[in-house]
Amino acid sequence: MIRAGVYGATGYTGFELIEILMRHPRVSLAFATSRSYAGKQLSEAFPCPYDLRLVDAGQADLSGVDVVFCALPHGATVPTAAQALEQGVRVIDLSADFRLRHADEYRRWYGKDHEAPALLDEAVYGLPELYRDRIPSARLVANPGCYPTSVILGLLPLVRAGLLAEAQIIADSKSGVSGAGRSLSLKTHFVEAHENFSPYNIGHSHRHIAEMEQELGALAGSPIHVIFSPHLLPVNRGILSTIYVRLRETATIAAVRDLYQAAYADEPFVHLLPQGQLPSLRHVVGTNRCVVQVQQADERGTWIVTSAIDNLQKGASGQAVQNMNLLFGLPETLGLVL
Amino acid sequence: MIRAGVYGATGYTGFELIEILMRHPRVSLAFATSRSYAGKQLSEAFPCPYDLRLVDAGQADLSGVDVVFCALPHGATVPTAAQALEQGVRVIDLSADFRLRHADEYRRWYGKDHEAPALLDEAVYGLPELYRDRIPSARLVANPGCYPTSVILGLLPLVRAGLLAEAQIIADSKSGVSGAGRSLSLKTHFVEAHENFSPYNIGHSHRHIAEMEQELGALAGSPIHVIFSPHLLPVNRGILSTIYVRLRETATIAAVRDLYQAAYADEPFVHLLPQGQLPSLRHVVGTNRCVVQVQQADERGTWIVTSAIDNLQKGASGQAVQNMNLLFGLPETLGLVL
Amino acid sequence: MIRAGVYGATGYTGFELIEILMRHPRVSLAFATSRSYAGKQLSEAFPCPYDLRLVDAGQADLSGVDVVFCALPHGATVPTAAQALEQGVRVIDLSADFRLRHADEYRRWYGKDHEAPALLDEAVYGLPELYRDRIPSARLVANPGCYPTSVILGLLPLVRAGLLAEAQIIADSKSGVSGAGRSLSLKTHFVEAHENFSPYNIGHSHRHIAEMEQELGALAGSPIHVIFSPHLLPVNRGILSTIYVRLRETATIAAVRDLYQAAYADEPFVHLLPQGQLPSLRHVVGTNRCVVQVQQADERGTWIVTSAIDNLQKGASGQAVQNMNLLFGLPETLGLVL
Amino acid sequence: MIRAGVYGATGYTGFELIEILMRHPRVSLAFATSRSYAGKQLSEAFPCPYDLRLVDAGQADLSGVDVVFCALPHGATVPTAAQALEQGVRVIDLSADFRLRHADEYRRWYGKDHEAPALLDEAVYGLPELYRDRIPSARLVANPGCYPTSVILGLLPLVRAGLLAEAQIIADSKSGVSGAGRSLSLKTHFVEAHENFSPYNIGHSHRHIAEMEQELGALAGSPIHVIFSPHLLPVNRGILSTIYVRLRETATIAAVRDLYQAAYADEPFVHLLPQGQLPSLRHVVGTNRCVVQVQQADERGTWIVTSAIDNLQKGASGQAVQNMNLLFGLPETLGLVL
Repeated sequence: MIRAGVYGATGYTGFELIEILMRHPRVSLAFATSRSYAGKQLSEAFPCPYDLRLVDAGQADLSGVDVVFCALPHGATVPTAAQALEQGVRVIDLSADFRLRHADEYRRWYGKDHEAPALLDEAVYGLPELYRDRIPSARLVANPGCYPTSVILGLLPLVRAGLLAEAQIIADSKSGVSGAGRSLSLKTHFVEAHENFSPYNIGHSHRHIAEMEQELGALAGSPIHVIFSPHLLPVNRGILSTIYVRLRETATIAAVRDLYQAAYADEPFVHLLPQGQLPSLRHVVGTNRCVVQVQQADERGTWIVTSAIDNLQKGASGQAVQNMNLLFGLPETLGLVL
Repeated sequence: MIRAGVYGATGYTGFELIEILMRHPRVSLAFATSRSYAGKQLSEAFPCPYDLRLVDAGQADLSGVDVVFCALPHGATVPTAAQALEQGVRVIDLSADFRLRHADEYRRWYGKDHEAPALLDEAVYGLPELYRDRIPSARLVANPGCYPTSVILGLLPLVRAGLLAEAQIIADSKSGVSGAGRSLSLKTHFVEAHENFSPYNIGHSHRHIAEMEQELGALAGSPIHVIFSPHLLPVNRGILSTIYVRLRETATIAAVRDLYQAAYADEPFVHLLPQGQLPSLRHVVGTNRCVVQVQQADERGTWIVTSAIDNLQKGASGQAVQNMNLLFGLPETLGLVL
Repeated sequence: MIRAGVYGATGYTGFELIEILMRHPRVSLAFATSRSYAGKQLSEAFPCPYDLRLVDAGQADLSGVDVVFCALPHGATVPTAAQALEQGVRVIDLSADFRLRHADEYRRWYGKDHEAPALLDEAVYGLPELYRDRIPSARLVANPGCYPTSVILGLLPLVRAGLLAEAQIIADSKSGVSGAGRSLSLKTHFVEAHENFSPYNIGHSHRHIAEMEQELGALAGSPIHVIFSPHLLPVNRGILSTIYVRLRETATIAAVRDLYQAAYADEPFVHLLPQGQLPSLRHVVGTNRCVVQVQQADERGTWIVTSAIDNLQKGASGQAVQNMNLLFGLPETLGLVL
Repeated sequence: MIRAGVYGATGYTGFELIEILMRHPRVSLAFATSRSYAGKQLSEAFPCPYDLRLVDAGQADLSGVDVVFCALPHGATVPTAAQALEQGVRVIDLSADFRLRHADEYRRWYGKDHEAPALLDEAVYGLPELYRDRIPSARLVANPGCYPTSVILGLLPLVRAGLLAEAQIIADSKSGVSGAGRSLSLKTHFVEAHENFSPYNIGHSHRHIAEMEQELGALAGSPIHVIFSPHLLPVNRGILSTIYVRLRETATIAAVRDLYQAAYADEPFVHLLPQGQLPSLRHVVGTNRCVVQVQQADERGTWIVTSAIDNLQKGASGQAVQNMNLLFGLPETLGLVL
């Protein structure tokens, strides 16, 4: 059994992790921490029948622990991760703290110096479809952001094949409210979000752009500019991205579909839909799937890629467990919903 | 024109009031106060195009004002109301502070002494269907609670006619989330309330029971015991109450329907549905209506009354404007959605 | 491996069954039938990546099949079930066709003669908490209705202990829209059901009353009269029942909680909540759990039981698989979400 | 009083029209037709307390009628409109039947010949912000589609000023379910649409593109190509469009905001939001407003326009009444929610 600890168990990604880990046949839970519910049962934080005592992060006992998941707020993970690594415990971090390769990019998007730039060098970006070969030997996995997962998996085959005619993409993404976390805010108050829909941080300002540009640029071998428009959907879970790209004139729908099929044929969690079908949240909610479609917008060179994931599964905790399976040599799909 | 001021304009009932008053043909808005948004425009508090500057309550100018609406938190209204009354301004209070006739009942349910028991004596309970004769001359109107409005209007004809075989009723009520106000709480966080449904404070503990027992008891001429189960519905607005009573054996459906028709034939806002139809939130949301049905549960003496209102309209701000119309001799329906 | 067939795979309970069975470690799916999608892939009926060819019921091959689940419309199951039984295949029926023990009760509630009254005699009512001893040897299991599951599990300890002071109960139940099935109707059209809430068939008319009265009466040893008010909630899944009963004066909260704890201590799927907590849909959606609370409404003899289930899991397909596990001597919880 | 008739009163736009007209101070309703509810009361079709008898279209009496609104399905309006016009009754058509100026465009997008091409010539496209001078004298007003209203009002100032650097725009639009009408379909079944989100007909295939290209092209004086991606939002009402355009390098945010302010300063229903705010459905639902924002996506020439309307109000029935006010010389805002 893998002994796993969870830091930050009472946010939405933390609780999702707990639920996946408690059903995982090869994991035993070593500890689960919570700042606000330390000393209480998990059932006091979430409506569940689990008897699981939450502890303060300072009291988490790392001895005998194989891996910790950090589901802490952005900017708060470095000391926790560093301490675990020092004690020989592998770390899967669900925050944004280790996703950018370069400290200057981190400074540009987060407005402050990174506290442990050496760890940035070492961290592996935990998108198995990109880094399946490097993840197994990683000490520190930086689990991707939810929006980047949907956008990168949507574009991966096109970008890797060098089909973009223009080094700019537009991603119009829509996310369920759990993506905004469990902290209270007027924007996520029921009456404000229900029967409502709204864009936020649109243009070139959302921090997830940094990850998208980094990974798409690496795939392309040259910079890709991402225009990104996130929107808040009145649903609990799910992200759907509608992505606009210009492809080379030589691109045909048959060839492009072949590319996607080749890229994803062996991927257990990524599905290209049959022609004529489009992704929906219903395809993916409650599963670790990413569902993708690609089509021509018209005959003038613009193409539309649509992709859907569950932001708490493939967009966070499901992908984190997929990474854990890779770290420990288990079947990649173990304990996850296909 | 009636010059009206609104205390507490940036809660849900306050904003609903503002919207009704701004469309009311005989009202000009003198001021609107807000603690949290003082000095800002209303459009910074709510997504609306109104240019209306919010002021701190201390800066509200009562000179030339005919009436103030108090949409302040429970327990916070007495000084504001008293000050307005002293300056000759009539008061319509949407809080619970003046709804109970007796100071000892107030103490029993609110756990503290009332700050101005003389005002309790003077206040008129602002349910026009009960007190239409007394409201016009009132200085202080205590606008009823949302749940009590739905339950009292549902039972009024039965109780007044002395048809209850047992002095106990069970009201199983379901309310939209705006009834819980605009203050942030985990319970009203989108992800917690959406795709969820839950009871709270069930039994004999919710404070609205005090109003129901007071008014139903007055109608009956003897005490009525109310068992009350509120539930939180994943909708923005609306209350539906399903009420169980035992009636005398002599009650027939024809006679009972006649009673309701007689009671409500001249009521502009209360509608008895045709036999075979049942109330729904859709009947009432966005209107000042109360829609009612009454039927036998079986042939053993239990009857079921169902009633629906919009908690922000007939359950709060719409009813407050109905009371204002009565106070100033205007047509009772002016500015309201029938 | 158990070879299982599913009749009626493209309704909501049928698809839920398919999803549970495909993840069940000891089941292989022999066939899945659909009238409207025969010859198509499951992914054409539901947004899912399964490659599963749907067949017409007439083409289902029963050879080598151990058990069939019938998720057909009410009134349509008898020939299918009879055929399977004749071929030595065990049957778990999710319709209402075999739930009533007596043909005259069936006639009373369904308005026609039962087509195979001998099967009524033989069928075992598949509520494991009541009939765990009889289910393993059954040929034909009548899986309970969703509302009855929530009401019977809520009242079981009280009724069995003879604590009811009055042989009448009031169940005010609220169900998500999937309970109404996948057939199109105006009532379940998105715009009509969303941001709405409404009662239907209230009083003593809903057919699920027959099951409740049958099983509660059997537990009590004498007739129990059920007043039942179903309501349509704007959520996809979940039933919450608020149940009003009168208990003997001797009942104390401590003793009553002891009764529930004793009744459910060994039940893997039924949870009595700690005092002070109340059930919500969030406790149960996506799981096979039933969550229960019991409390005094006041000190006058009325008590309130609240209970929640997922109507597609413990209220239908989850419970069906629980019964299948019992039929084949598997751990009762195998393949189900605790 | 204007005597108005409504054809097709029991769809969502028809019922919205009835509600607006019944509250309009200068309109009396001459008749309301319905195919499916002919001979019944409106309250049998919608949960409302109106006593309004629905008639079959064949029995609608046009004598003394000033104007009829046609809220019939696309393709079904020509005979009804022609008959009214012959009898000297003015027509406001909410279908798509008269929106395209050229019969060949109609054939291209609708796949059949138009039945009355002369009426296409005569009809005025009823977007008051574009054709306020022509509408008052029209006999036949073609009320715009919901999506085109949101997109055209979003782009009008930019296109008219010749600021587009590229004759192609991308409109990523999201609509509430009432836009799909009241006819039953699996896609609009509650359980399928709730907690879901999905694109449909994306690219260059949705028929509303014809209107957008026609009106934007006319404004620009040369063809504009529209890529259009509609999505189905799990809300009842509202459209939000996120529109991507490339502007000339000379464009500055200050100058562009000035353009919008100049264009919309005197428009009662179109509001440019203050910088830093973004449109949401909450700004517009239940009103005849269009709320707009414009901003640079980055510094590379791409700009983003966001615009929101209520699809049943400014997107259909509210705009139809705005047109009626213009036709009869009434204040343009009469009876509408600002």
